[in-house]
Amino acid sequence: MTVTPLMTLADLNRTDLAGFEAAVGDTFELAPWVSAAAHAERPFASVTALHEAMMAAVRAAPRDAQLAFLHNHPDLAGKAARAGAITAESLSEQASVGLDSLSDEEFARFHRLNDAYKAKFGFPFIVCVRRHTRDSILRQFERRLRHDASAEFATALQEIFYITRLRVAAKVTGEGMPKVNGRLSTHVLDTHAGRPAAGVAVELFEYAGEQAHRIVRTVTNADGRTDQPLIGDRPLPIGRYELRFAMGDHFRRRDIEAGDPPFLDIVPLRFSIAEPEGHYHVPLLCSPWSYSTYRGS
Amino acid sequence: MTVTPLMTLADLNRTDLAGFEAAVGDTFELAPWVSAAAHAERPFASVTALHEAMMAAVRAAPRDAQLAFLHNHPDLAGKAARAGAITAESLSEQASVGLDSLSDEEFARFHRLNDAYKAKFGFPFIVCVRRHTRDSILRQFERRLRHDASAEFATALQEIFYITRLRVAAKVTGEGMPKVNGRLSTHVLDTHAGRPAAGVAVELFEYAGEQAHRIVRTVTNADGRTDQPLIGDRPLPIGRYELRFAMGDHFRRRDIEAGDPPFLDIVPLRFSIAEPEGHYHVPLLCSPWSYSTYRGS
Amino acid sequence: MTVTPLMTLADLNRTDLAGFEAAVGDTFELAPWVSAAAHAERPFASVTALHEAMMAAVRAAPRDAQLAFLHNHPDLAGKAARAGAITAESLSEQASVGLDSLSDEEFARFHRLNDAYKAKFGFPFIVCVRRHTRDSILRQFERRLRHDASAEFATALQEIFYITRLRVAAKVTGEGMPKVNGRLSTHVLDTHAGRPAAGVAVELFEYAGEQAHRIVRTVTNADGRTDQPLIGDRPLPIGRYELRFAMGDHFRRRDIEAGDPPFLDIVPLRFSIAEPEGHYHVPLLCSPWSYSTYRGS
Amino acid sequence: MTVTPLMTLADLNRTDLAGFEAAVGDTFELAPWVSAAAHAERPFASVTALHEAMMAAVRAAPRDAQLAFLHNHPDLAGKAARAGAITAESLSEQASVGLDSLSDEEFARFHRLNDAYKAKFGFPFIVCVRRHTRDSILRQFERRLRHDASAEFATALQEIFYITRLRVAAKVTGEGMPKVNGRLSTHVLDTHAGRPAAGVAVELFEYAGEQAHRIVRTVTNADGRTDQPLIGDRPLPIGRYELRFAMGDHFRRRDIEAGDPPFLDIVPLRFSIAEPEGHYHVPLLCSPWSYSTYRGS
Repeated sequence: MTVTPLMTLADLNRTDLAGFEAAVGDTFELAPWVSAAAHAERPFASVTALHEAMMAAVRAAPRDAQLAFLHNHPDLAGKAARAGAITAESLSEQASVGLDSLSDEEFARFHRLNDAYKAKFGFPFIVCVRRHTRDSILRQFERRLRHDASAEFATALQEIFYITRLRVAAKVTGEGMPKVNGRLSTHVLDTHAGRPAAGVAVELFEYAGEQAHRIVRTVTNADGRTDQPLIGDRPLPIGRYELRFAMGDHFRRRDIEAGDPPFLDIVPLRFSIAEPEGHYHVPLLCSPWSYSTYRGS
Repeated sequence: MTVTPLMTLADLNRTDLAGFEAAVGDTFELAPWVSAAAHAERPFASVTALHEAMMAAVRAAPRDAQLAFLHNHPDLAGKAARAGAITAESLSEQASVGLDSLSDEEFARFHRLNDAYKAKFGFPFIVCVRRHTRDSILRQFERRLRHDASAEFATALQEIFYITRLRVAAKVTGEGMPKVNGRLSTHVLDTHAGRPAAGVAVELFEYAGEQAHRIVRTVTNADGRTDQPLIGDRPLPIGRYELRFAMGDHFRRRDIEAGDPPFLDIVPLRFSIAEPEGHYHVPLLCSPWSYSTYRGS
Repeated sequence: MTVTPLMTLADLNRTDLAGFEAAVGDTFELAPWVSAAAHAERPFASVTALHEAMMAAVRAAPRDAQLAFLHNHPDLAGKAARAGAITAESLSEQASVGLDSLSDEEFARFHRLNDAYKAKFGFPFIVCVRRHTRDSILRQFERRLRHDASAEFATALQEIFYITRLRVAAKVTGEGMPKVNGRLSTHVLDTHAGRPAAGVAVELFEYAGEQAHRIVRTVTNADGRTDQPLIGDRPLPIGRYELRFAMGDHFRRRDIEAGDPPFLDIVPLRFSIAEPEGHYHVPLLCSPWSYSTYRGS
Repeated sequence: MTVTPLMTLADLNRTDLAGFEAAVGDTFELAPWVSAAAHAERPFASVTALHEAMMAAVRAAPRDAQLAFLHNHPDLAGKAARAGAITAESLSEQASVGLDSLSDEEFARFHRLNDAYKAKFGFPFIVCVRRHTRDSILRQFERRLRHDASAEFATALQEIFYITRLRVAAKVTGEGMPKVNGRLSTHVLDTHAGRPAAGVAVELFEYAGEQAHRIVRTVTNADGRTDQPLIGDRPLPIGRYELRFAMGDHFRRRDIEAGDPPFLDIVPLRFSIAEPEGHYHVPLLCSPWSYSTYRGS
């Protein structure tokens, strides 16, 4: 995602304004004054402190500068994104959630919501898209349209906090990195054999409305886990998911009789993620005739 | 399903051949000789014994009479069914599984399989459709096409046994009824509250390929059960199913915080039925953060 | 437990005062005036109404009559019980909880508590022993000693309500029987085989302090249940219990390898009962490598 | 346990016979010829290879040398141990399982078994005590008494293999250490709250006959685990265990109503260990009304 090379916090603490702006100047959408204000606060003890100094500059700005800043954000899924007049970060963030590939109908729906939002609040709808599924963004849109102006102003700033925290974490490395990533993991235990179920095909689906889109396809290792987290090294997008485990195949390989067709074949676990920076462990304990799951840790 | 009024076994044991044939003569497809042979064996100690006497007549018949009898069965989803030249029983049985409403493509597929089957075995594919979902019939078709002639002859007779056992059970009442029905039930326990979950919306879906068709929609009662079995008073069609429980709504009504969106919303339990005359109890034990199921009794 | 023959509510509604007193006169400890007052209220629509009329007479009595009535109750585990100067009902109720077989040390402890109680409240400690284990009675004693006089007076009357409700239910039969009994049941499912576990030895222990006393020994039937409830046809004594299931033997009979010694052998489920008139279903779902339980219904 | 300082494999590979014997000469009970033979096989690529070379020397010895070697082992819990005429290793190993603190009755029982064993096989009963509980040693004794001479000779050598593998692992460090230790761990998840249960008192008991002896007392940390494994850095003694979790206190701290007394208070999980070098993970998933466990990984 980063277009600039990663800089160390130590280097950033030593650099002049020009170097500082080259490194982190586009963190806040078309608002170089934010990084300029932050530059004056050096040195920073942690990357988190750097980001907080930037946010403090936004919060300390006069209302009209804040509003102008909010105005500078692109319409979500809007014409600007199609035409390219936004920062590279915004573009790749919007692509991550599929907002660059909306159907005409979806494009129209987002457009309508965006218009209603701007009519009510005077600035475009801002959301940290990397913390959401497409479904969840739509839900946020509808909820936030019901806010009053002051609640929504605070919400918009909070989203900018999430967006820019991710950007800072992608640009700067060093002490006290902010917690921006979550992790989704699983584990399959065969309670018939009393050991991890190895070689089980696992699929992860993300729901958009009633449609489930497969986003991961993997196989359990000797410990019944997956070699990589199902989702990791990024925020977990808020939304609805389904894990599907090919347990019928697993027990068939073990030559276990469990009916024809077997009582359990594909075992689905459906759950939602609400904490993008959290750890969701969603294991499956399974015999040919029973299974259970839970939010683990 | 029955078009003739239900007769008691006692009355049937007393009736003359004409009455006997009026009552049960169309049990075996266009084969009145079967009931004639059975009539000679009266009286029957049980309805099961009556049915077994009929099957014994089929088994004792010369091979060419057996083959002629098999030939008299309609093509499954075939032209005959469309044209009406089959018994009323056959017609309603085929309707029960949706074979009367196939798409053109499905109709063509069944037709192709049927032709291949007849070319190989010389008689139409016979299956007790009330013991199967549409999916399962297709699976049987493909499996049985791989049989040799003698294995398939035995399988066809076994299916006739199932078909006619159901017909006899629908026509005659009395001692020793054959076991022809199964039962699918559920139970929802709220392990957060330690009591049955009442008022939970429950849906039962039947799978046809990757498509899930809703076949039952109900709500749990005060004991966490459904007032009626999900499927009862009939054979359980062999096939794949999914139960879906609106647990998110349930815990929301109890004002329990479980994330936004809640970790569990719709909980799906996917399982297969392999024993049409069996009892499948598929309960859900559920807290806002965990659930389990098992084949119970 | 009853020494008088069971009378129907209809007969009781018709009988004169002498017959009424012969039937239910000893329901309230040495207080025939209670049944005399109730006799005037006939006829009763339900057995529950009869009992409530009796309780109403107690509640309507002058304070000194109430206190005299409370005084007429025997000391729990006291000298009276040893000497026999109490009603037959009191005697058999105290025996039911083992209060007739206390060790010298336990006898001294109960005696001390009883003296402290009488010194504070002026009447003996009254508790419906059939609703408690020995442990629970001791716990009640210690709790109630901390009550103020008015709270304890109400508690003592409530216990008399429980005691006499049981007595009425044992003496009179008819419409509207009060709910006085609970039920403890279990069910063993073998989640390795997907069916009920038959022939499993089950033991029920009641805890007294750290000691577990076996009170039931039985075996599961073909449905994985016990032919009789573990406790039934009586109030469930409030207290701590442990069920022990010989699952190691069960899986050994099925020739399942699960380690030597097997991972699971005797499976204990420890739980408490708090509602004497409730239904506690405490099932065991068990494979050789996992098990679960829950309060079911 | 070690009385000599730990030596590296590299140093051992370089040392002369005197140094070698000083380091590992008492690995095999009073049999310096074993280490002498092994010394000739240097250098060893791994600690495991060193131990295997020693065992190869035992296996290659003439039968009468093997028997003399077996004879040199002390009686388990025998007079020798009381009088001190055995190696320091033997002494501390026997203490680890409580064999140094037998009651007179137990001492007599072990003595009787030992005499019967020596009468049948001609050498003392040898068992790797660190891989067993006292219960399990007794069970081994009774089983092995039923062996024939050749099966028992092989078993005795296998036990010496276990004993000396542990000694080598305690004396020498370096590449390819043999796997001699197991691990017993737990994890408590509160399925009512959907997070690890922190601060839960956990006790581990070891069974000797019907008596449970507490061997560990700890508290879960913020992740619902224990800071140290329940048993670690040593072989897991084969035997029966019970974990007890103070879940009633946990839910009481969370102000959850679950009856009085609460349905679940102390939750016991009873299980056996059969693989001393294995990992046993025995978690508890628990709401106030349900719990489950399994052998995890």
